[in-house]
Amino acid sequence: MQTEGRLPLNMKILIEGEEEVGSEVLEKYLTTHADRLACDCVVISDSAQFAPGKPAITYGLRGIVCYELLLNGPDRDLHSGSFGGSITNPANALATILAGLIDDQGRVQVPGFYDDVVALTDREREAFATLDFDEADFFRQVGVESAQGEVGYTALERRWARPTFDINGLWSGYQGDGPKTVLPASAGAKFSFRLVPNQTPEQVTAALREKVAQLCPPGIRFELIAFHGGPGVMVPLESPYIKAAARAIEHAFGTPPVFTREGGSIPIVATFAETLKADALLLGWGQDDDNTHSPNEKFCLADFHRGIKASARLWQELSQIATRQVPSKPTGGDRWDLAGR
Amino acid sequence: MQTEGRLPLNMKILIEGEEEVGSEVLEKYLTTHADRLACDCVVISDSAQFAPGKPAITYGLRGIVCYELLLNGPDRDLHSGSFGGSITNPANALATILAGLIDDQGRVQVPGFYDDVVALTDREREAFATLDFDEADFFRQVGVESAQGEVGYTALERRWARPTFDINGLWSGYQGDGPKTVLPASAGAKFSFRLVPNQTPEQVTAALREKVAQLCPPGIRFELIAFHGGPGVMVPLESPYIKAAARAIEHAFGTPPVFTREGGSIPIVATFAETLKADALLLGWGQDDDNTHSPNEKFCLADFHRGIKASARLWQELSQIATRQVPSKPTGGDRWDLAGR
Repeated sequence: MQTEGRLPLNMKILIEGEEEVGSEVLEKYLTTHADRLACDCVVISDSAQFAPGKPAITYGLRGIVCYELLLNGPDRDLHSGSFGGSITNPANALATILAGLIDDQGRVQVPGFYDDVVALTDREREAFATLDFDEADFFRQVGVESAQGEVGYTALERRWARPTFDINGLWSGYQGDGPKTVLPASAGAKFSFRLVPNQTPEQVTAALREKVAQLCPPGIRFELIAFHGGPGVMVPLESPYIKAAARAIEHAFGTPPVFTREGGSIPIVATFAETLKADALLLGWGQDDDNTHSPNEKFCLADFHRGIKASARLWQELSQIATRQVPSKPTGGDRWDLAGR
Repeated sequence: MQTEGRLPLNMKILIEGEEEVGSEVLEKYLTTHADRLACDCVVISDSAQFAPGKPAITYGLRGIVCYELLLNGPDRDLHSGSFGGSITNPANALATILAGLIDDQGRVQVPGFYDDVVALTDREREAFATLDFDEADFFRQVGVESAQGEVGYTALERRWARPTFDINGLWSGYQGDGPKTVLPASAGAKFSFRLVPNQTPEQVTAALREKVAQLCPPGIRFELIAFHGGPGVMVPLESPYIKAAARAIEHAFGTPPVFTREGGSIPIVATFAETLKADALLLGWGQDDDNTHSPNEKFCLADFHRGIKASARLWQELSQIATRQVPSKPTGGDRWDLAGR
């Protein structure tokens, strides 16, 4: 506004204060005010740079769907001597069912789970490989020496671009000191799948319900609760908005951005895409060592200033894109390349 | 003493007040005073009749060995989005390991687990089949409609005479309301095997440790804690003591006893056998509906009086067995028949 006398484009600012508690109100607000909020592109700063001196454009987020599985067997805890072997044990059944949801290659065994997964392209894998990501160092940072995951993918690929099955919680029977010879009446688990485009929570839930029914042994009744979830998101790199953002970042940081994906989920991004039919630009200026959500959280002042400069430049760059010309969402069968790099 | 003026045999009475808390002191006492306690036969009343009007001699008990398995992965709980897929999840590993200890036929997958199992003989299975045991009714009593167990055996056979694997407790990660997208740092389980003659806790523990090491994936450190256990017990039915007890029971109850085994464990019985080289007679007068260890526990007065009469007669019968002539313990390879029926 200082240089041109007016903003070079029409801007609508939306402030969200509930991202950490599920964005329920924002979701309703978007649906109710879709006309008023209509736009070509949504710019969100809720991601990070790849490393110091490596600003990033996050072009993909994983989705998520969470569940609770409750198994009930006998109507009370039983003596494992008097009844063991003759009555189905819900905790045994839980281990069998959960282990049955993934094979020894790290592949999820829910039927059709991979049908709509947009595969990593060769160029994408090459681009990831050129990033300065050291697996041994990554493992060391969380206190492990190695890891097991989906066979055929690097840790970075598995983290950013492949769907997962993670048990988030387990409980059954006796958890105190020493042994107890109980055959528990019930057992339960929380688990979740991280999704990638174009998987949907709804399809996974339907197939999962059938799979659990198949795996559930005689003598056990199961209840599968599906919690709120959201699909993954991927912005095509050939998008003119991505190209505009890359130019703005290079201007402000003095180096072109790297293109990264993110293993976590920001479900509202998919809601923006669905409700407003607008692509998202995920431009964030944080660093991995900012202690996000932890004690001594920080934000680098130099990144603060470079981020301001990149944002100011971004409006200029975006204003030069005359009309909406974003390619359609990639589909499972399409060849999808890093054309925008 | 009223009829003969003196007891017809030498009797040593041992009163145990700690059976429900592991009999640790008794075990030490037996070892220390083995010479003083030397005897031909140990009579224990800690079992039950098979049903009203069906007094029983319990000729077999299962053994037991209990464990705690602790798995540790990353040094703290991780975000399942940022790390899921790239770091091994201890709760996933726990499900895989536990499920890997038993196959879909209900067979324990610890190497050598069945090597020393004394098989049910055809005559034993026939004898079990003639007992008035209704599976549907048994299931109904604990609130289930059916059950899964080791393929090829009836519920009664599985309960009395086959070894088991039962998970007694599970814990990991988040157990509260709703979902939480955590990749837990650790996971744990309690589990136990019921053993049958001639399995030993020591052999199972050694083989289990190797099996768990095989099943434990990269990125997970495991700790396997073995708690106190004990082997199963089986008194050969051709034992002259068993025959003497059968005559005493028929005298007192007006009907011959049925021969039953018991799924539970009384580890001290094996200690008696090992320390004193004496066989055990398990003669108990309780009923299934006595509410043992539960509110309104009872004991039928008629059974009390019949039990007294059977015990008095037993001393007479035992006194007529001149010398120790008990057959040796059955071994895994032997053919072992219900010769004593």
